[in-house]
Amino acid sequence: MGALDEEHFNKEIENGVELDCLDLGFEDQPETVAIEDAVKVLLQGLGEDINREGLKKTPLRVAKALREGTKGYKQKAKDIVQSALFPEVGLDDAVGHAGGAGGLVIVRDLDLFSYCESCLLPFQVKCQIGYVPSGQRVVGLSKLSRVADVFAKRLQDPQRLADEICSALHLGIKPAGVAVILQCSHIHFPNIEPPFLDSNRQGWVKALVHSGSGVFENDFADVWDDFLSLLKFRGVNVDKTLMKDSKQQCWCPSQYSSSAEVTGQPSTGMVTAVTSILISLGENPLRKELAGTPTHFVKWLMNFQNANLETKLNGFACARMDPLKQNGEAGHDKRMYTELNLSFCSQCEHHLLPFYGVVHIGYYAEEITPVIKSRLQSIVRFYGFKLQVQERLTRQIAETASSLLGGDVVVVVEANHTCMISRGIEKFGSSTATIAVLGLFSTDPAARAKFLQNIPNPASGGSGF
Amino acid sequence: MGALDEEHFNKEIENGVELDCLDLGFEDQPETVAIEDAVKVLLQGLGEDINREGLKKTPLRVAKALREGTKGYKQKAKDIVQSALFPEVGLDDAVGHAGGAGGLVIVRDLDLFSYCESCLLPFQVKCQIGYVPSGQRVVGLSKLSRVADVFAKRLQDPQRLADEICSALHLGIKPAGVAVILQCSHIHFPNIEPPFLDSNRQGWVKALVHSGSGVFENDFADVWDDFLSLLKFRGVNVDKTLMKDSKQQCWCPSQYSSSAEVTGQPSTGMVTAVTSILISLGENPLRKELAGTPTHFVKWLMNFQNANLETKLNGFACARMDPLKQNGEAGHDKRMYTELNLSFCSQCEHHLLPFYGVVHIGYYAEEITPVIKSRLQSIVRFYGFKLQVQERLTRQIAETASSLLGGDVVVVVEANHTCMISRGIEKFGSSTATIAVLGLFSTDPAARAKFLQNIPNPASGGSGF
Repeated sequence: MGALDEEHFNKEIENGVELDCLDLGFEDQPETVAIEDAVKVLLQGLGEDINREGLKKTPLRVAKALREGTKGYKQKAKDIVQSALFPEVGLDDAVGHAGGAGGLVIVRDLDLFSYCESCLLPFQVKCQIGYVPSGQRVVGLSKLSRVADVFAKRLQDPQRLADEICSALHLGIKPAGVAVILQCSHIHFPNIEPPFLDSNRQGWVKALVHSGSGVFENDFADVWDDFLSLLKFRGVNVDKTLMKDSKQQCWCPSQYSSSAEVTGQPSTGMVTAVTSILISLGENPLRKELAGTPTHFVKWLMNFQNANLETKLNGFACARMDPLKQNGEAGHDKRMYTELNLSFCSQCEHHLLPFYGVVHIGYYAEEITPVIKSRLQSIVRFYGFKLQVQERLTRQIAETASSLLGGDVVVVVEANHTCMISRGIEKFGSSTATIAVLGLFSTDPAARAKFLQNIPNPASGGSGF
Repeated sequence: MGALDEEHFNKEIENGVELDCLDLGFEDQPETVAIEDAVKVLLQGLGEDINREGLKKTPLRVAKALREGTKGYKQKAKDIVQSALFPEVGLDDAVGHAGGAGGLVIVRDLDLFSYCESCLLPFQVKCQIGYVPSGQRVVGLSKLSRVADVFAKRLQDPQRLADEICSALHLGIKPAGVAVILQCSHIHFPNIEPPFLDSNRQGWVKALVHSGSGVFENDFADVWDDFLSLLKFRGVNVDKTLMKDSKQQCWCPSQYSSSAEVTGQPSTGMVTAVTSILISLGENPLRKELAGTPTHFVKWLMNFQNANLETKLNGFACARMDPLKQNGEAGHDKRMYTELNLSFCSQCEHHLLPFYGVVHIGYYAEEITPVIKSRLQSIVRFYGFKLQVQERLTRQIAETASSLLGGDVVVVVEANHTCMISRGIEKFGSSTATIAVLGLFSTDPAARAKFLQNIPNPASGGSGF
């Protein structure tokens, strides 16, 4: 590492930004500065003060993350593969099916993320790759992952991503055939019901796409059955019949308008700012698929507009439940109630990237009324729909719920942060939890423990990515 | 990226090595060259031809991977944290427990890898971090991951790793307290039965360690219960009582000698080579914990010595099962038999890193004999214990099994490759599968399908990491 790295490291300290892969030199480039300027326009459009502490470095963070996340434009997949082809004797003759080749080689469950070309939001990808070697030649296994990443780190659509990975590997390895299956998950847009919404995974738009070359060109070839069987051992259950349908329509929820939509026409200044970001990333904003992207991204952002807290808080205060005592102490006539898995979506103010998850609320009350749940869901949504950090979100929900329900409240927020996967950190499996406790819950560990034991384990239920 | 990166990219093509984080400049540094020279000594000590195709670039790959994997020596955790402290009002007063602080903040399931200081093999870590903010200050969530990584990327022992992460975060954030739990998995040494071998995960040595500061200093504090409860929601089941015991003894299996050990005294030249690697990484080989490391690493490597194939193959051929026809065609009197989950451990010849997993073998025979299973396990072990690539391993097992069992054989190898997680690629969840088919299995898709359906899904069983 030596001198170069020390300097880079000092830079990081100075700027408080990430020590990301390959971002040496990003900082002072005109493209980065242009994106920073555009992000400032967007923040101001949201009614934010761009000089407040949490936002001061946001434009630079966003610019670096976007450039890091689209660095695939500058990489050549074919060369990556050709630098790691290894001769393996015996792969053309004795052992084999599929035209004399040496049997399938599969890399399973590669976690990738990409950016949706239709709305500029990141989407997550589980990638399955197989190929049948030929010509006494295999490729280093990690190169399959590298190549997939080159194409993921561009503005993408699931089917094109699968096709590009497949054909780049085919050209590079010259095998008997390549198969690619992608399971993609895209965050939904509030108030829009897209046609591909997965009913089991609230709020996720799913696409399952595949691409095949050579012996995999025919979707009904036996070798596809071998591939799918080899995926199944690790719980990757891809049904061959499901692989047929999501090719036609665009999956991005931004493409579907909604009657419930209230935001109106997005500001020209913000749309122009996003267009300039596309140009800075090296894209052509006139490309057909990008025509609506600036508008879509601004529409998404406007969900997180800075709203007048006071007005809304008064609204919540008026809605106080009558049967609850205002400063009630927990007596023997009060019981613990819980509202679990209230879903939310928010936007990280440090990186302008979504974070999302569920909120669990516990409180003591004399009785429960059916309106409480919807009130609590409103509070959760209200505090989610702004530029946030999870710690503040948790505290704000607790304080507001407390004014509604009396003083004994506990709030747990469980979330996945896109910024933990999309900026060189790539901690795909990680999640965060925060807790705020008021009244009895802060003084009585047993009450806290009782509430915490009530929270279901999603590993056995199926929420989250 | 610009010119700098293009140049770097071209370099990659030339050398066929990885486009890793921060390795710009590694290549020509004297430390890298010294490690390359040491790796050549090790390869020759294994009886390998360092000029054969698969090994030509191995010394450079190993050198870069080791330097990348120990880059934490040059990073300062405190600075990383302090560059991302954000003011959050309300965290010292209204909401809170634990001395008026704002409630726990937890980041769960961070996947890390580190290098065992006792044997130089990588070990895998699931890292759970919690802290209780204080002083109206929170830290960017990704910094918890960054700091953990700084200490993971050094030669480590689980308990010290936990302590270093904990105290660095405490110093950097100045919170009410920090808690760290690490679940570490270390590959076992063949022929050695270490005391911490996990009976559920064949061949893994496990260590569960924790470290706490401030409000977490007392292991029996209520806040530990909160922390453990918040982990449980995501299926992280850490039993408080289990957190007590693994502190005393060294966990590394290299520390335990075995009566079954056959390798004898490792060569001085190889031991000296590993010592020089430690020096090149910036370590002091005289440090107490490193005293036995060169010997341990060489002992590990010697398991993968290049053996005389012909001798051993003759051994297998003599062991042919009598009831099986030599060139038997599958008739109505033959049935399909399977041997599933034969475990193996091998060493990737491209990166000199372990890969490990299970082999499934299917064959047609007239009857099954009890010795077949042990013979097949011997074949699997024999071909595993050398420098390998998975594709070749699969083919060699298939060919040898075929000479033993008749011509109708299918072999599936499922493996996890350390090189997929430990060189900037960090695809923690990924796994690979390869298949070789002979005779009937290559011509009859139905036979293949029948065999593949028999392979159990480890997701519901619990093998692998």
